[in-house]
Amino acid sequence: MSRRTVLLGHGAGGRMTAELVESVLLPHLGNPALAALDDAAVLPELPPGRPAMTTDAFVVSPPVFPGGDVGSLSVTGTLNDLVMTGARPLWLSWALVLEEGTDLDLVERCAVSAGRIARATGTAIVAGDTKVVPRGAGDGIYAVTAGLGVVPPGRQVSDTTVRPGDAVLVTGPVGDHGATIMALRHGLETGDLASDCAPLADLLEPLWDAGIAIRALHDPTRGGLATVTAEVAERTGLQMVLEETAIPVRGAVQAVCELLGLDPLELACEGRAVLWVAAEDAGRAVDLLRANPQGSGAAVIGAAVERPAGGSPVVLRSRSGGLRPLDRLSGSGLPRIC
Amino acid sequence: MSRRTVLLGHGAGGRMTAELVESVLLPHLGNPALAALDDAAVLPELPPGRPAMTTDAFVVSPPVFPGGDVGSLSVTGTLNDLVMTGARPLWLSWALVLEEGTDLDLVERCAVSAGRIARATGTAIVAGDTKVVPRGAGDGIYAVTAGLGVVPPGRQVSDTTVRPGDAVLVTGPVGDHGATIMALRHGLETGDLASDCAPLADLLEPLWDAGIAIRALHDPTRGGLATVTAEVAERTGLQMVLEETAIPVRGAVQAVCELLGLDPLELACEGRAVLWVAAEDAGRAVDLLRANPQGSGAAVIGAAVERPAGGSPVVLRSRSGGLRPLDRLSGSGLPRIC
Repeated sequence: MSRRTVLLGHGAGGRMTAELVESVLLPHLGNPALAALDDAAVLPELPPGRPAMTTDAFVVSPPVFPGGDVGSLSVTGTLNDLVMTGARPLWLSWALVLEEGTDLDLVERCAVSAGRIARATGTAIVAGDTKVVPRGAGDGIYAVTAGLGVVPPGRQVSDTTVRPGDAVLVTGPVGDHGATIMALRHGLETGDLASDCAPLADLLEPLWDAGIAIRALHDPTRGGLATVTAEVAERTGLQMVLEETAIPVRGAVQAVCELLGLDPLELACEGRAVLWVAAEDAGRAVDLLRANPQGSGAAVIGAAVERPAGGSPVVLRSRSGGLRPLDRLSGSGLPRIC
Repeated sequence: MSRRTVLLGHGAGGRMTAELVESVLLPHLGNPALAALDDAAVLPELPPGRPAMTTDAFVVSPPVFPGGDVGSLSVTGTLNDLVMTGARPLWLSWALVLEEGTDLDLVERCAVSAGRIARATGTAIVAGDTKVVPRGAGDGIYAVTAGLGVVPPGRQVSDTTVRPGDAVLVTGPVGDHGATIMALRHGLETGDLASDCAPLADLLEPLWDAGIAIRALHDPTRGGLATVTAEVAERTGLQMVLEETAIPVRGAVQAVCELLGLDPLELACEGRAVLWVAAEDAGRAVDLLRANPQGSGAAVIGAAVERPAGGSPVVLRSRSGGLRPLDRLSGSGLPRIC
């Protein structure tokens, strides 16, 4: 039997599209709302709270990597974006742009991964779409996810609530996802490297339950820890002082960075969060995070302070005690990391 | 000054991405929820009713055409998918996959169009994302939209409620969008051709207000009237008898179809709805539709009947009175129509 590949007709909306959806996607993503294959899914009323909505396009190259694939990455990334607002995720949409000639086994693998993450997090992929573009107008598989969740009453995450003295925490080692993708792209042995791609809801929920006031919460995806910290510094007018020795970076990530001239603080994470909490809550927050294997590497990595006149938004205190400004990623160099 | 084009760095998530978003996209899409540029938008509680969610990927080629562009098409298409469930649309997400080297004026034009449709319909684009892929891994601009709306209490649209004797209505001439795209792709003069791309909420809301029981409601996008009618026939087990002479098709659309060997009943519409209503409501529904210029071409085009043993799901009664089976679009031939 010939290898199954994506054909242009799979994207035309007729019988071939229906066959692709019903044989390759629905069995893995399935739930009653999606299986109805209506123009839109009609769903139960939301629990109390403020709805949160987000979207992300995933064009990662390569689409399969140690620790995940574009299927798990897309669902995880969108769930995590919701969680960063304090929301409990509920529903997802999942749209694919497939290149003609793409192996249908790759498409099915990504559907399996996407469905697995949705089930594991108690969420559901309730809407989908599949389009096909000719060879040379795409690259295998792109996945675009949108998500809806609800922020329970009483939760308020906002960068503008960060105060001087607040602690900056990270839930684990940084740069794993970015280093893995860059190593693959440069043909390096990945060895111990793997993407940290993982949903964050279960890790963070105990902090809310424990009454820890999370002021700001971000997942350091594109642009990494450096960019997300700079963004909070810019929005608050404060300065973030990060301690280089406190920031967890795996040895394998550090090694790839040295080889390729990258900074792990600029590399994307896909299963980490950066939190700003009141100093007095910091120790308890780290303990709660470390109680979950996913947060075993959690650490306080710095603090927010009043920004000195002319001071940089973010400074890194090096091993030797010197301070150097840490800029957000400018742009070039790291395309298609997610 | 050099022509502004999309660079790979615009998709890396750092400073260049922020500049692209803030200078080219936000001014046209802007609203407070989006402008916060948080990981997810946190929004007011929903009005009563059942939430509806949908997504669509738009890879139309060419991205600009008489009557619209991928910006207006993407927002319109998603709004209409929500409206097809009886929902009132509220919020949208809008994600872009841009090819390196794409003219930023094209990107901005699409943002202007997307924002214009959102404002005109009282909806808001509350979440977005922008990714860039290298030359040859995309084609200009792809837009992926998700939408959230609420089905007001008491509205129930479902194909399974269609009964023998129900009338089939269309809100205007079919095939305009598909014919326009195909004419452009074949280098034909478009002349009077233009996409019918338009939001449908305002056209259909008076029917709900008037208490007309809309049994089933679909927008005949990919695969056209033939496919959507076949889908309802398959889901209900009924036969749909369409009257060829009653189906409105513009002369310019018919001409393109004859030239290119296409069937207007298989061509995508982007501003039309097909309705199944009780026979006794059909006349009143047509009157209400025709009262709006957007529905001036509304017509009853057929009826649902018990399917005879061995009968086709859809049959077309021709000018001469003969009946021929009308199949849904199989697949090949019409890629990238939306």
